[in-house]
Amino acid sequence: MKNLLSSISTVIIANGRFPTHPLPLSCIESATYIVCSDGAANEFIEKGGKPDAIVGDCDSISNENRDLYSDIIHPNSDQETNDLTKSVQFCIERGKKDIVIVGGTGKREDHTLGNISLLADYISDVNIIMVTNWGIFTPINSTTKFNSYKGEKVSIFSIDKVQLTTENLKYPLMNRALNNWWEGSLNESLSDSFKIHTTGRTIIYQAYK
Amino acid sequence: MKNLLSSISTVIIANGRFPTHPLPLSCIESATYIVCSDGAANEFIEKGGKPDAIVGDCDSISNENRDLYSDIIHPNSDQETNDLTKSVQFCIERGKKDIVIVGGTGKREDHTLGNISLLADYISDVNIIMVTNWGIFTPINSTTKFNSYKGEKVSIFSIDKVQLTTENLKYPLMNRALNNWWEGSLNESLSDSFKIHTTGRTIIYQAYK
Repeated sequence: MKNLLSSISTVIIANGRFPTHPLPLSCIESATYIVCSDGAANEFIEKGGKPDAIVGDCDSISNENRDLYSDIIHPNSDQETNDLTKSVQFCIERGKKDIVIVGGTGKREDHTLGNISLLADYISDVNIIMVTNWGIFTPINSTTKFNSYKGEKVSIFSIDKVQLTTENLKYPLMNRALNNWWEGSLNESLSDSFKIHTTGRTIIYQAYK
Repeated sequence: MKNLLSSISTVIIANGRFPTHPLPLSCIESATYIVCSDGAANEFIEKGGKPDAIVGDCDSISNENRDLYSDIIHPNSDQETNDLTKSVQFCIERGKKDIVIVGGTGKREDHTLGNISLLADYISDVNIIMVTNWGIFTPINSTTKFNSYKGEKVSIFSIDKVQLTTENLKYPLMNRALNNWWEGSLNESLSDSFKIHTTGRTIIYQAYK
């Protein structure tokens, strides 16, 4: 499996809790192109960051930043999509193929749930992961092998409730559909890799500890 | 609709981010019976709180608290349920009928997702809501009317993908099944109440702002 973390180029800073964990912070530091979803720009700029673009319905950007950064603000008032999706679409339109999202969780939980589940909608267009203060979300829609370590906490969330089979996980799934969000959570890797067999939109979470 | 917040008796402090918002904090203050899920006890005690019971697999309680509070610790090592479910079951066994969960989100997102979705599994036994730093989750499985205000942000998450119909929401649903987590999110109340018609497990989120 391609390791997105080793080749970060594009980072989207979503409008959740600003990262505090070293991993998402290092993603921002090593990025060559940084998109802020709407109000996320305020905190990033306050911390000394320089976004390449600010995308969203732009109702959360401070007046000061709206003036200072007017040349990189790309307003999008579409009511059918949220700011994160607008930011991803913006990146796709500019040919960005490997995207890491940070700051996607930790504030309003409806935004958290939306941002996580929307990952599964982007995979036909880009390689994308979400790196939070607690772990990494990777959306898949076909059989995928993950680098891991023995004891790593792994959770599986099924968007399309297709049958799943796992290899190298402590609580194996065998042609099983997950009918509840919690049903595939709190599993554990048995080795330096594990595999998920799926044919539908599925989101894998690997916690840092 | 019964207003759980006006008659709080039992509060479970889950092992997510400890509450900082005045509403969940006031739930703790007015509770007459407080259960801490495992490690949540450490922070609560440190802040001067006195739990009535500590429930879970008890691998996160400090050694000091384990000794000091040994008479109210109820270990439950069942691998099939998480600490929050163990805490809810503990309350049910003691006849508690109205339960407010706080601290259920804001740390590891797999725990957040599990804790939110598990609400829907408790409703056959108890009246239960989850009060976070950002909003209130209420699980339902039949037509329910909610107190609200014009402009309140409302999200609907469907565990059983049954057809839903709404009244008094800005983006109405009419006999529609939600196939993605985000699909019913970011709606808005049009008045001082709204209604959700459902026949399956559904979770309603009302954000504070």
